[in-house]
Amino acid sequence: MIYQDNKVTDLKIAFIGGGSRGWAWTLMNDLARAEDMAGTVYLYDIDRQASQNNAVIGNNFPGENWRYVAAADPAGAMTGADFVIVSILPGTFDEMESDVHAPEAFGIYQSVGDTAGPGGFVRALRTVPMMREIAANVRRYCPGAYVINYTNPMAVCIGALYREFPEIKAYGCCHEVFGTQQLLSHALEEMEGIADVPRQQMNVNVVGVNHFTWFTSAYYQGFDMFEVYRRFVDKYYESGYNRKGTGNWLNDFFATDARVRMDLFRRFGYIAAAGDRHLAEFMDFSDYLYDCRDWAFGLTPVSWRRENLQKRLDKSARLLSGEEVWAMRDTGEEGTLQMRALLGLSTMVTNINVPNKGQITNLPYGTVVETNAAFTRNSLAPVLAGEVPASIYPMIARAAAENDAMLDAAFSLDLSYAREKFAALNLIKTLTRAQKDALFDTMVKNTEKYLGMYRK
Amino acid sequence: MIYQDNKVTDLKIAFIGGGSRGWAWTLMNDLARAEDMAGTVYLYDIDRQASQNNAVIGNNFPGENWRYVAAADPAGAMTGADFVIVSILPGTFDEMESDVHAPEAFGIYQSVGDTAGPGGFVRALRTVPMMREIAANVRRYCPGAYVINYTNPMAVCIGALYREFPEIKAYGCCHEVFGTQQLLSHALEEMEGIADVPRQQMNVNVVGVNHFTWFTSAYYQGFDMFEVYRRFVDKYYESGYNRKGTGNWLNDFFATDARVRMDLFRRFGYIAAAGDRHLAEFMDFSDYLYDCRDWAFGLTPVSWRRENLQKRLDKSARLLSGEEVWAMRDTGEEGTLQMRALLGLSTMVTNINVPNKGQITNLPYGTVVETNAAFTRNSLAPVLAGEVPASIYPMIARAAAENDAMLDAAFSLDLSYAREKFAALNLIKTLTRAQKDALFDTMVKNTEKYLGMYRK
Amino acid sequence: MIYQDNKVTDLKIAFIGGGSRGWAWTLMNDLARAEDMAGTVYLYDIDRQASQNNAVIGNNFPGENWRYVAAADPAGAMTGADFVIVSILPGTFDEMESDVHAPEAFGIYQSVGDTAGPGGFVRALRTVPMMREIAANVRRYCPGAYVINYTNPMAVCIGALYREFPEIKAYGCCHEVFGTQQLLSHALEEMEGIADVPRQQMNVNVVGVNHFTWFTSAYYQGFDMFEVYRRFVDKYYESGYNRKGTGNWLNDFFATDARVRMDLFRRFGYIAAAGDRHLAEFMDFSDYLYDCRDWAFGLTPVSWRRENLQKRLDKSARLLSGEEVWAMRDTGEEGTLQMRALLGLSTMVTNINVPNKGQITNLPYGTVVETNAAFTRNSLAPVLAGEVPASIYPMIARAAAENDAMLDAAFSLDLSYAREKFAALNLIKTLTRAQKDALFDTMVKNTEKYLGMYRK
Amino acid sequence: MIYQDNKVTDLKIAFIGGGSRGWAWTLMNDLARAEDMAGTVYLYDIDRQASQNNAVIGNNFPGENWRYVAAADPAGAMTGADFVIVSILPGTFDEMESDVHAPEAFGIYQSVGDTAGPGGFVRALRTVPMMREIAANVRRYCPGAYVINYTNPMAVCIGALYREFPEIKAYGCCHEVFGTQQLLSHALEEMEGIADVPRQQMNVNVVGVNHFTWFTSAYYQGFDMFEVYRRFVDKYYESGYNRKGTGNWLNDFFATDARVRMDLFRRFGYIAAAGDRHLAEFMDFSDYLYDCRDWAFGLTPVSWRRENLQKRLDKSARLLSGEEVWAMRDTGEEGTLQMRALLGLSTMVTNINVPNKGQITNLPYGTVVETNAAFTRNSLAPVLAGEVPASIYPMIARAAAENDAMLDAAFSLDLSYAREKFAALNLIKTLTRAQKDALFDTMVKNTEKYLGMYRK
Repeated sequence: MIYQDNKVTDLKIAFIGGGSRGWAWTLMNDLARAEDMAGTVYLYDIDRQASQNNAVIGNNFPGENWRYVAAADPAGAMTGADFVIVSILPGTFDEMESDVHAPEAFGIYQSVGDTAGPGGFVRALRTVPMMREIAANVRRYCPGAYVINYTNPMAVCIGALYREFPEIKAYGCCHEVFGTQQLLSHALEEMEGIADVPRQQMNVNVVGVNHFTWFTSAYYQGFDMFEVYRRFVDKYYESGYNRKGTGNWLNDFFATDARVRMDLFRRFGYIAAAGDRHLAEFMDFSDYLYDCRDWAFGLTPVSWRRENLQKRLDKSARLLSGEEVWAMRDTGEEGTLQMRALLGLSTMVTNINVPNKGQITNLPYGTVVETNAAFTRNSLAPVLAGEVPASIYPMIARAAAENDAMLDAAFSLDLSYAREKFAALNLIKTLTRAQKDALFDTMVKNTEKYLGMYRK
Repeated sequence: MIYQDNKVTDLKIAFIGGGSRGWAWTLMNDLARAEDMAGTVYLYDIDRQASQNNAVIGNNFPGENWRYVAAADPAGAMTGADFVIVSILPGTFDEMESDVHAPEAFGIYQSVGDTAGPGGFVRALRTVPMMREIAANVRRYCPGAYVINYTNPMAVCIGALYREFPEIKAYGCCHEVFGTQQLLSHALEEMEGIADVPRQQMNVNVVGVNHFTWFTSAYYQGFDMFEVYRRFVDKYYESGYNRKGTGNWLNDFFATDARVRMDLFRRFGYIAAAGDRHLAEFMDFSDYLYDCRDWAFGLTPVSWRRENLQKRLDKSARLLSGEEVWAMRDTGEEGTLQMRALLGLSTMVTNINVPNKGQITNLPYGTVVETNAAFTRNSLAPVLAGEVPASIYPMIARAAAENDAMLDAAFSLDLSYAREKFAALNLIKTLTRAQKDALFDTMVKNTEKYLGMYRK
Repeated sequence: MIYQDNKVTDLKIAFIGGGSRGWAWTLMNDLARAEDMAGTVYLYDIDRQASQNNAVIGNNFPGENWRYVAAADPAGAMTGADFVIVSILPGTFDEMESDVHAPEAFGIYQSVGDTAGPGGFVRALRTVPMMREIAANVRRYCPGAYVINYTNPMAVCIGALYREFPEIKAYGCCHEVFGTQQLLSHALEEMEGIADVPRQQMNVNVVGVNHFTWFTSAYYQGFDMFEVYRRFVDKYYESGYNRKGTGNWLNDFFATDARVRMDLFRRFGYIAAAGDRHLAEFMDFSDYLYDCRDWAFGLTPVSWRRENLQKRLDKSARLLSGEEVWAMRDTGEEGTLQMRALLGLSTMVTNINVPNKGQITNLPYGTVVETNAAFTRNSLAPVLAGEVPASIYPMIARAAAENDAMLDAAFSLDLSYAREKFAALNLIKTLTRAQKDALFDTMVKNTEKYLGMYRK
Repeated sequence: MIYQDNKVTDLKIAFIGGGSRGWAWTLMNDLARAEDMAGTVYLYDIDRQASQNNAVIGNNFPGENWRYVAAADPAGAMTGADFVIVSILPGTFDEMESDVHAPEAFGIYQSVGDTAGPGGFVRALRTVPMMREIAANVRRYCPGAYVINYTNPMAVCIGALYREFPEIKAYGCCHEVFGTQQLLSHALEEMEGIADVPRQQMNVNVVGVNHFTWFTSAYYQGFDMFEVYRRFVDKYYESGYNRKGTGNWLNDFFATDARVRMDLFRRFGYIAAAGDRHLAEFMDFSDYLYDCRDWAFGLTPVSWRRENLQKRLDKSARLLSGEEVWAMRDTGEEGTLQMRALLGLSTMVTNINVPNKGQITNLPYGTVVETNAAFTRNSLAPVLAGEVPASIYPMIARAAAENDAMLDAAFSLDLSYAREKFAALNLIKTLTRAQKDALFDTMVKNTEKYLGMYRK
């Protein structure tokens, strides 16, 4: 890369999963708007055609700063890269269908099924070997690159990257916290009449594990947002809070009524900082503590995802043909801003997922946690976020331990060992051991195309 | 305080040591330039007349945002304060004369004598009881205030504040790191022809204890400043680097030729981030490893400080009478910027002194260290700065241990215990025990006016 | 001290609180049975007559190894001591009466009132200044001595010793864990027919804070005692377990039916390792979760203690006059065994209370915890006891935080600050703030004779 | 296993490397003398004949308690094992010849070549995959077994076991510390005339990494052994200390004159607790700081090992035929004692190698360290050994970092990455990069038979 006049040119970005019809376009959008960076994005995808299509689409974006190239293999994409972006779908919707819906036969309903519980577990078994290969390629082709992961299960993926290549400079980026800052901004408007405060100005201390993060403090200028949120919850606890049609977050929290997180605030005294659909999976959801019908949040069926994919494929075809022109927007994502800071063009403090090295003092060393970090030139330093408060500690410690168990299971490449870890998952604790084993064997069978490296 | 239109008014700042002819004016200068803050500064000083004079001087500064009041007692200054600034002289120049020069009779020369060695030790004995009283007053009158300390010995003062009141929100602010960033900026100009890079854009990782801090990495945009600095040192190692007349730092590093710190870089591989006068006191200075004549840095005699004080008193008189008008300037200090960030008006990452809670992984928990921290609304979160590198570990670990010994000695209020700790100081290791005791007893006798609370 | 033939003679032990009619005699008993140690015990007590009486009684114990002397002042007892034993009553039964019974007027019943809750808090206010004075004397008269404390509130007392003199070699010794090992031995007899297993052979991992310690594992040879205990609890859960008349523990757990701790095992999955009376005070006792009538454990009224003291005074008179001869026995206490190990005459692993330096990974650094430690010559090294399990973490973290709050309050010597900390106690959370303040002021007033050093 | 009458029968021990002509016989000797244990030892070795021979030899040992069986495969040896003993030779003497002597062509002499430096590095590349396979088998066949490793490089082997199977209950056992305790016992005899003190009674605090361990304190009853050792070193510093013919340690320190470790004591103030041959490899040996001729310790050529093996093979034949009867002895090894303690038949405190979880506060979490640990039933709890002292910190931190680099290199299964790590080894720092690469490539080529799983 070349620095000149406070601008960096000749940057090299490798995008693994570069055929995606979503994140890839978001990145193209954001790069096109970043005036002080320029370079080449190498799109790599096992679906070569998809990455080739995206290269065309990318090169159609406005501006001259960025060129998009479909790489034939990981070496082609990653050799000498400054940044590696990872956003892959581990398997197809067929496998995801099994993750989410196979447990339903045993009475286990998951609202998302990509992070925790049986769905998250089996997805981890598929994903970890992919992540290890990516980490091995980083070690070989671009050991000094920053690696930004968007793939779920986030914490397990980050753990896999570091366990494979301990020196990797990887972190995970997730927008659930952003959505919660946005909710606080809405609460401020509702309760105090102060509108349109950018969510970044909600100063929060973040602790937890991905999709089960919490704010232990939140301030906006003179307001203690815990006090504002308390009144907001009092007002909307029964009815739910549903502000239709304004969101531009991919996992829009408006799809729920925020009733789960309002309830969690009352029970535990801290602000749960993820959407209801994610939060519910860390609670005793299988015991129907948070039955989706009562608590007004949607389970996301894979059939919806299939339909949605079709829409995105159609959009891809239109963008490719030029029938549709991408509408530039504020995506709300931070990846490009983080790259700017890591290049020394700015300083920022935001939340990320990396292994715990003391940023959360009462969670185990090494487990992947989500906290704030300071981004400066060539440095990503987590801040000391302190302790997980006692009231929420048992749930977060359990979630962290389950992430580590998934990681151990996937690294063992041994299904008999994985079955033991699976059986200990909290979300299926109501099942008998025979049921647990039957569920595991079914889900493994359903997804065996991606599990060939495991010893039976 | 009141927030309105992204401005905070009705702030209350207590300035302990508010009669100073230096820091107080710097603060007035910086506050006058901070357009989004307004309020009252309560100046408290044991020299009541000095604080009254400063109140007049302060109210003569340009702008309408700030009012200055001389408080009659600590309660008057601190009750309900949002910030407490501490910048006191512990004793008079008579005591400082003893600190710095009494050891010379034993062949121990100190370049500053306010931080380490026998001078730092006895100064700590005087200062800690004052800091405890300040902390007790914070606990009573404004327990939620941020406390910014500028008094030396910095690490011991911060330790005293926290040991007296563990919940205190205090930190220490020192500009030695800033000066070293400035030196890197000059090195960039010298070696690469890139001039006038603001020192804040030198992104550094800071580890160590105050006045003996080190950079373990340093970047400016595309430059690895370690590589630039290596060439710079090669060029100036023999001659020294002396760039006269441009600095506005109180402890101007230009007063030295930076030869000590260039030598330390060659010996240990990391960038020592304080002025030569401070650094030398942490080495085996008493063994003349860094004799001031050979290494081209000045010992600072107290006689100079007396002369300088007279100049500042004269200036004070002129400012008071209106004969002289303060020339507004860029002071290079960060205190006001830090307050803005703690008020939620910005975000910043800079270096501070606070007790170690894991920010430096291989120094003891609780000892006061200097690292970067993220400042946001109502939060000052140190970043994980990692390990002290092995090559410089023994020196830094020793310095931290001596700071803790000073703190233990001062909290014991027992001179016989303090004498044992004094005898273990590295800087006097060439003396016999009898000489050490004689030196201690002499220095205690010289400063007994301020040590009345100690058991003999 | 002198070592010869694997025996240590000329030992010097200082006993602070040496006039006691209980612990002092236990120590005399145990020392008389320790054949490889000899020396002098210096008894110091503010009740000089009591220590003089005990010197006579001590010298009447069988054997020639030990001599007992009543010291006139702390210097006389402690100068050059090898060990310092601390067992004091902070105040009289009048103060204890207030500690235990004053809260009853507000509906707050405490079973012991010396550790947690309002009684523990105010007792801490009295005790900490005494402990600081003891620590200051250790620093002055015998800085290398091992200090063994038996005084309650244990954790706060140990914390005070270390905060006053950070280099002190102090630890706290409590027999509640021993009693629980004994209960496991009984459970083994009840469920497996294996009788008379010495409690020391129950290998347990201990985590927690004093009087709220837990076993996270327990083994006896081939038995996983968690499995045995589970069956034992199943058998006795409803009826309680009451094995009359066999105990020789001062705080005999047989006085209860062990119903609280059996219930805790069922709720949380770990073995609570203290008597029901202590455990109940850490739960929501004030909410009557464990009402003493339902749960079959006794509240201990101070009137009983007064009667009991009279019996002990009578016994003291008889021992003094020679009317009664002390019956040598196995006291079950470990103090003498620990001294032997610290002298290098044996090695032992047992549970102690010291500040946390990593032995419990998820409790704060510095808070006083109870875990196992290895005792060898001149070394007392806590073992890594791991994490507090998630299910019991919130309760233990809260207990540790309340201990630290008591310590902060007592070190502040400021009643207005102490009142804030008092108001946050879990055991009085059902009271209004006005009631809390009224209770605090009443209890302070009741015990003001011992609180003269506090600022109002 | 079955417990009865304080004896454990039906134990199952798997011995990996069970064909050895050394450790296997030591174990047989010690088991035959352990009267309270009985069971079966399953000997597994890739040299099937050797393990079959040892089964015969083992069954000829006196006593009825133990039966020896040669297992056909790991599953046969390990299924359901209570203990797994690992003592393997990674490769043959041909590979060891390369490890030790190939660097000599570049002027790099290694006294042992199995732990640090180029020899240790390449040996690690061979050994780690074997250790991973063992750990995978433990996970599959006996996940609850205790695993005792004797294979070098010790720290890397233990690290590999834990990285492959994080829940493994493994530790490394090494007798270098024992030998140093023995040296202290001799020093006591030499300086104080007290003979025959068992080495176990030298109470020491152990910190460091295997083969580079140090004592930070050492006591025998009333003696501070640092003071005794200081005088001992003064007496023997020039001449060396050589007490011929009495040792029964495999790595007999008498083969040296202890001059290296006496010199280290003078330089750094702490007692180096390994033989000179090992210690020298961690210093700047390649710079001839400790040239073997000047410092009177032997380099161990592989030719000697070949001769010695022949002697052991001869002895094996004689034991097998019954021509020779094993002479029972006190081996000085602790493995059997540790097993007894882990079975609950005793308690012991001794030194072991396990990953750092806080037992050494200033070394990285996770790196394998050597400290004391408490052994009780089903528990092996490291004690808090504190900090590595500042004077020796740089050397120990470097050694630990090199161990971790070897582990990372071996886990990468990527020779190009390994080459980078190899080039950073301290012991070859005098070579050019080209020389380093040539040496690496040569050593890899020499041992390629065992490195087939590595990517080129």
